[in-house]
Amino acid sequence: MLWFQHTLTLPAKTRGFHLITREVLQAIPEISQVKTGMLNVFIQHTSASLTINENASPDVRRDFERYFNRSVPDSTPYFEHDDEGPDDMPAHIKSSQLGASLNIPIQDGRLALGTWQGIYLGEHRERGGSRRLVITAFGQGK
Amino acid sequence: MLWFQHTLTLPAKTRGFHLITREVLQAIPEISQVKTGMLNVFIQHTSASLTINENASPDVRRDFERYFNRSVPDSTPYFEHDDEGPDDMPAHIKSSQLGASLNIPIQDGRLALGTWQGIYLGEHRERGGSRRLVITAFGQGK
Amino acid sequence: MLWFQHTLTLPAKTRGFHLITREVLQAIPEISQVKTGMLNVFIQHTSASLTINENASPDVRRDFERYFNRSVPDSTPYFEHDDEGPDDMPAHIKSSQLGASLNIPIQDGRLALGTWQGIYLGEHRERGGSRRLVITAFGQGK
Repeated sequence: MLWFQHTLTLPAKTRGFHLITREVLQAIPEISQVKTGMLNVFIQHTSASLTINENASPDVRRDFERYFNRSVPDSTPYFEHDDEGPDDMPAHIKSSQLGASLNIPIQDGRLALGTWQGIYLGEHRERGGSRRLVITAFGQGK
Repeated sequence: MLWFQHTLTLPAKTRGFHLITREVLQAIPEISQVKTGMLNVFIQHTSASLTINENASPDVRRDFERYFNRSVPDSTPYFEHDDEGPDDMPAHIKSSQLGASLNIPIQDGRLALGTWQGIYLGEHRERGGSRRLVITAFGQGK
Repeated sequence: MLWFQHTLTLPAKTRGFHLITREVLQAIPEISQVKTGMLNVFIQHTSASLTINENASPDVRRDFERYFNRSVPDSTPYFEHDDEGPDDMPAHIKSSQLGASLNIPIQDGRLALGTWQGIYLGEHRERGGSRRLVITAFGQGK
């Protein structure tokens, strides 16, 4: 049974959705040693999120940002928690709608993602700063 | 430590939510060998989803479809990504709202689902075609 | 390889979001024996949810309740499944939007939560009653 765990600090990104599959894979090259297993990617923040979606067209990521901004608008008048700016409470909601933790199977040393699947980081703050991920792979060795 | 992993290809289903607990269990009978463990069910697509909800009344699944269609309408005018049809970008959003990956504990050779819990496949396209799941069970043997 | 699994029954809580990190940790003290691993927290109900969010300000949890009540209103007229009360079908939807299962990495005998992260129970019914969680920790021993 193999276990690998690394922390990945992503530099500050602009508000919106960003494809981070490559950064995640580079942070945990030991996946190649795992025959059958699981990868967990966990973000240690409450105003950003992780999700899996389309890895090709950047317009999908732009539409995600449009949709979630309309669905949870900045400066929502009934929010009580507004000390940290108009984008703070909406960022918390989006973080829970999309989630902080991804679990992806490993098959024969590779992530078992579908052809069109990639890992998105949702940066829900105007100035979220750098973001820390804990990346854990485990499974049977080859 | 036991590991089992199978691919399950579900035939094309109509748009909406479908109970697939039985198909998942049939695809991985080795769960019965696991005393304490976890099951992961992963869908390799970005326009369908997996979630856990009420396994009895089919009207719950119809209300899911009604709710999500109103919450993310087809042909939303501000979506930029519309080449693949009016239901495509909404399907991507729903896929991330509900998720692509489920993790369910295994207890004494059975899934530790609550009495009323079942596994739903959310088919968010009019013609999504067949859908591929990767099903992984792991844990201590009995 | 270590495996620990416990059932935690939480007493009935009021409708809304509740911080339950302490209860979860107390239910599975064996986390301290795990060097590198994962924790899964699973709720065996379809009208409550688990999510990770801000562990400090109670106003964040109140805003969650406000937001989700507006996003999925009680007594939504087009819901077909209304036999169990005006808050029942909305509770099912919220349960799937937020999720029933959390996966958090374990690092050196502790949960690898960020400084501001805590575990929320979302109670989406007026009278949800007690709620049962299955808590599973696994990983390499120290």
